[in-house]
Amino acid sequence: MTHRLFGTLCVIGPGLIGSSVLRRLRAQPGLVERLVVSDRDPAVLERVRCLDLGDIVTDDLVAAVGEADCVMLCVPVGAIAPVAEAIMPHLKPGAILTDVGSTRRSVVDALTPHLRNDISYIPAHPMAGTEHSGPDAGFATLFEDRWCLLTPEPGIQQDQIERVSAFWRAMGARIRVMDVDHHDTICAMVSHLPHLIAFTICGTADTLAEDMRSEVLDFAASGFRDFTRIAASDPTMWRDIFLNNSDALLSVLDRFSQDAAAMAQAIRDGDEHTIVETISRGRRIRRSLLENRQA
Amino acid sequence: MTHRLFGTLCVIGPGLIGSSVLRRLRAQPGLVERLVVSDRDPAVLERVRCLDLGDIVTDDLVAAVGEADCVMLCVPVGAIAPVAEAIMPHLKPGAILTDVGSTRRSVVDALTPHLRNDISYIPAHPMAGTEHSGPDAGFATLFEDRWCLLTPEPGIQQDQIERVSAFWRAMGARIRVMDVDHHDTICAMVSHLPHLIAFTICGTADTLAEDMRSEVLDFAASGFRDFTRIAASDPTMWRDIFLNNSDALLSVLDRFSQDAAAMAQAIRDGDEHTIVETISRGRRIRRSLLENRQA
Repeated sequence: MTHRLFGTLCVIGPGLIGSSVLRRLRAQPGLVERLVVSDRDPAVLERVRCLDLGDIVTDDLVAAVGEADCVMLCVPVGAIAPVAEAIMPHLKPGAILTDVGSTRRSVVDALTPHLRNDISYIPAHPMAGTEHSGPDAGFATLFEDRWCLLTPEPGIQQDQIERVSAFWRAMGARIRVMDVDHHDTICAMVSHLPHLIAFTICGTADTLAEDMRSEVLDFAASGFRDFTRIAASDPTMWRDIFLNNSDALLSVLDRFSQDAAAMAQAIRDGDEHTIVETISRGRRIRRSLLENRQA
Repeated sequence: MTHRLFGTLCVIGPGLIGSSVLRRLRAQPGLVERLVVSDRDPAVLERVRCLDLGDIVTDDLVAAVGEADCVMLCVPVGAIAPVAEAIMPHLKPGAILTDVGSTRRSVVDALTPHLRNDISYIPAHPMAGTEHSGPDAGFATLFEDRWCLLTPEPGIQQDQIERVSAFWRAMGARIRVMDVDHHDTICAMVSHLPHLIAFTICGTADTLAEDMRSEVLDFAASGFRDFTRIAASDPTMWRDIFLNNSDALLSVLDRFSQDAAAMAQAIRDGDEHTIVETISRGRRIRRSLLENRQA
């Protein structure tokens, strides 16, 4: 028998992530007794009803959260703190509040002043996604073998952290608990910077002369294509990530830009040693990735 | 019956590309009557003999090219002009000289002064490869449905260009004939810049604190991994490409750096409009790629 994790779970914002959680819970019926789903967009709620992803589906946030043992905010990063503030007075005493945001520091700073003493806020960041969005884009195996990073503030009870960990393990994820700022720097490096570069290089290609633009598309298989796969992601989501993790992102972007400028200078100078060193470093990292079974 | 393209073909530098050509020719025996293979490295020639990729396998360049109707230089870009110069006096009158270099202008400029009037030099750039190198890395289907870009100088006879085109079509490739400088800009954008960025971002990750480095590898699936796939490529080959296409590469890198700096400024300023515009542009390019059946 599946061990029950929560009596009532409320998912706010059933997009790619939220609807994947809901699908997974539908596939493992014992984990949660009752699923409440809320969103401000009636069209989204209509899709949730059609897909039968919730036991109660409502646009009334206050009613949605009242009975929930756990409220999970699956809204874009920029909306987490405002929505949390709006529902805070209506949460059940002792409830767990969690989210699935990709950046942490700005959210934690904005949310903390409104946090009630009897609510455990345990942010979780499932590192999973596709370039698609909305309730139809989700699937039950989205989190299989992916990491979920928990960033509880000091003072949160260990048993509450364990409940959220168990929940994400049930979603198929692997858990890592870490500090908020450490999280933001890691994600800036492994995810936010690559996405920024991917968006940017598409724009750079777009400034080429008309005849070259079509050829860039023809010949994209030579490397460019790899850089554009992640460039198809949702603009609102990524705007929020960039703005909410700006310090860490601008810091790694600055390092990267300096490294790129150094490489440009080496090419300009015909400095074979520096060029080969940089390339060889790339190979070493790639080899580490392979050994790490991530590639 | 397969239409014969050349009596004797000489492949100099049987690495990933050269050995793939040879394997393909072994699989279609009628295309070329006799395969001569040459390299300066005895270990490479030993592998070629073991793999039975040539009818004549020799480290004597002069002897290798003497009977060849077509000599194909599959050496790194930086070695094309010096090897061409060394073999030039020994080429058979009327022979075709071709190569498989990824950059053109610097090679053409270095090679042209040494070119004999009775030799047709028809550079070809098969846009195919893997991150592996050497004669054991090749395979007969490497060029299947990939582009091969021919950049003959004005004045080269059309029927000679057609022979090289027919050869690459027999390798499975699609042909595009274009101007040398146009080629270099296109390749800088679709291949050389993405590779430069991939090598560089690995170096940037490598400068993080020790504990973060290992986590970058753990969490690489979030975008970073896509950027490192191509970073495992051969250092000598890429050093030569960067140095031999420096003008076009530094030009697109400069555009890209300006675009990245503009994105950084938009993030610093909280300029949501510019951020969303840049991201949306990325999505549009991605959509074009999908429509183009390249993704």
